[in-house]
Amino acid sequence: MPSANGSAAATGAGFVTAVETALTEFFAAKRGTVEPLGAPFVEAAEALEQFVLRGGKRTRPSFAWTGWLGAGGDPAGPEATAVLSACAALELVQACALIHDDIIDSSRTRRRFPTVHVDFESRHRERDWAGDAAHFGTSVAILIGDLALAWADDMVHASGLDAAALSRFAPIWGLMRTEVLGGQLLDINGEAGGDDSVEAALRINRYKTAAYTVERPLHLGAALADADPGLFAAYRAFGTDIGIAFQLRDDLLGVFGDPAVTGKPSGDDLREGKRTVLLAEALRRADATDLAAAKLLRTSIGTDLSADEVERLRAVLTELGAVDDVESRIADLTERGLAAIETSTATTTAKQSLRAMALAATRRTA
Amino acid sequence: MPSANGSAAATGAGFVTAVETALTEFFAAKRGTVEPLGAPFVEAAEALEQFVLRGGKRTRPSFAWTGWLGAGGDPAGPEATAVLSACAALELVQACALIHDDIIDSSRTRRRFPTVHVDFESRHRERDWAGDAAHFGTSVAILIGDLALAWADDMVHASGLDAAALSRFAPIWGLMRTEVLGGQLLDINGEAGGDDSVEAALRINRYKTAAYTVERPLHLGAALADADPGLFAAYRAFGTDIGIAFQLRDDLLGVFGDPAVTGKPSGDDLREGKRTVLLAEALRRADATDLAAAKLLRTSIGTDLSADEVERLRAVLTELGAVDDVESRIADLTERGLAAIETSTATTTAKQSLRAMALAATRRTA
Repeated sequence: MPSANGSAAATGAGFVTAVETALTEFFAAKRGTVEPLGAPFVEAAEALEQFVLRGGKRTRPSFAWTGWLGAGGDPAGPEATAVLSACAALELVQACALIHDDIIDSSRTRRRFPTVHVDFESRHRERDWAGDAAHFGTSVAILIGDLALAWADDMVHASGLDAAALSRFAPIWGLMRTEVLGGQLLDINGEAGGDDSVEAALRINRYKTAAYTVERPLHLGAALADADPGLFAAYRAFGTDIGIAFQLRDDLLGVFGDPAVTGKPSGDDLREGKRTVLLAEALRRADATDLAAAKLLRTSIGTDLSADEVERLRAVLTELGAVDDVESRIADLTERGLAAIETSTATTTAKQSLRAMALAATRRTA
Repeated sequence: MPSANGSAAATGAGFVTAVETALTEFFAAKRGTVEPLGAPFVEAAEALEQFVLRGGKRTRPSFAWTGWLGAGGDPAGPEATAVLSACAALELVQACALIHDDIIDSSRTRRRFPTVHVDFESRHRERDWAGDAAHFGTSVAILIGDLALAWADDMVHASGLDAAALSRFAPIWGLMRTEVLGGQLLDINGEAGGDDSVEAALRINRYKTAAYTVERPLHLGAALADADPGLFAAYRAFGTDIGIAFQLRDDLLGVFGDPAVTGKPSGDDLREGKRTVLLAEALRRADATDLAAAKLLRTSIGTDLSADEVERLRAVLTELGAVDDVESRIADLTERGLAAIETSTATTTAKQSLRAMALAATRRTA
């Protein structure tokens, strides 16, 4: 992105390409360390590289970069290359989160490809190896996720950030990782412990999505530009509201999204029994007004539903008013988040980018 | 350790206490970040703290600290507190490695306590929660391991090291993490793929143990003291040899150790089917001279052996000469490693410490 029109490009294809180039260069630079460790490690590192480069919207690097631009970072300045590389490193944290999450959720596919643990389970089977193939796949995926987390740090340290920038960056980087792990722990505890309240679902969204995806990336960018506390506060307000709205949109897409667009089987969240605000709100309403619907939801969510059953549950969620409620929450949060950024000291072009990103995140179809 | 007789204490109880104090203070400082995330996260962070503080010999911090002293680091100087804290952070990397390894090895106990995944499996059962208890335990343990890896970095960044020291430290820290993960991947690939050669076992030892436990910790200490390249090379030679010898001793203890001293069931490595140099050497000899013994080893290692069967296998390993071979390797490696350090520029007291540590690591009974 350095030397290009950074602000406008932060949400566009040019930025995505720049992030992917930085990641490709990072993996290439690692090869000298990887190869002496032997063929199985080369295979694992290649699997990680393919996973990271296969796709994704580069949402977190994009918010970080925009956070930096908004605090006065100069995309044509001498620091831009290092900043871009540090922002791109967020994709490696995300790789760890996704690879480990896919084990935890027992997910078989991601972005239309087998998940990492399933991929290595298949490799074990194809090679007719000894031992349990599924356990082997899980073991390799745990280690590849760990590698992604370790390499995320390596990429930050190799980015070329100066010592002062690095020391402003590190504490927020630490908070971000702690918060996303905290959100994941809340999530699996809530699922196991049966807390199906709206509050519990919102709390998980706050940490697992909003802080991790929007607020902390913006803060990382702000820290690199040594922004004033007022801008940090505005980014927090924007990040929390837009991040939660982003997750609420995700929850709606997980139930009502078009599989051809989302790349996930229709109604997947219902089969997985994901504890979303949508479901929590539906249960809250059903408990008050329609005990038969409440029972249906509680007994069928998280089971191996047929297409007809998914259709039935969709109708129930809609009829209970839960879908309208979530749409209305998204609209309110988006409006409040946008207002926080409008009145901030962010640069005019960054405000425009953040507005566009907020609308894209909360009105998307995939 | 600052202000104490650091060099002598690096292998003693004083150093262990200093490391544990630094870790305790780190966890205390994290509480303000942890508590807002909610009770399940507090529970997970407490489980990690208990795991880290429960014991262990603090081998890696000890080598790192001695590496620093050997390069002229002053235990009474102004940097000592920060250096000690950065050394102690190695225990958090180790916590990640152990917690994830215990999932991979399906180990039920560690240091006489349930492993983390077994612990959380039990908590799930006791609470009569929904879903699969074992999968919940594994999921929580994956996330707690991730947290340990992330917090290891946080502890380094919060240690108080100056920017120059941190920039010398970071690349080696990165190599160390990559190498241990590479060693673990080689290990599980070798096990699944059936590579039972001595070379494969030695290669795993090189990365999973020697680089990770001795060489890189010494290098981290050397980097903090800004040592000359000659000392790095001597630490590498010492670390590789003593590290491999350390693992070979571990392998012997895993088969012949006294459960009352090692804290692990007798013959556990035989039941787990661990691919050690001991076993590889026995197979190499049996393939050449005693096909019945080779068949017995290949069909019984990695199965649920009775005490009598373990006793029988011990006799076979001894009769084949594999035990003597491994003892002789340990002796040769130890001698060569000690020679490398004797002729180095390390301080006299550090040489004494390293000699004592090498002998303790290679002659221990637990």
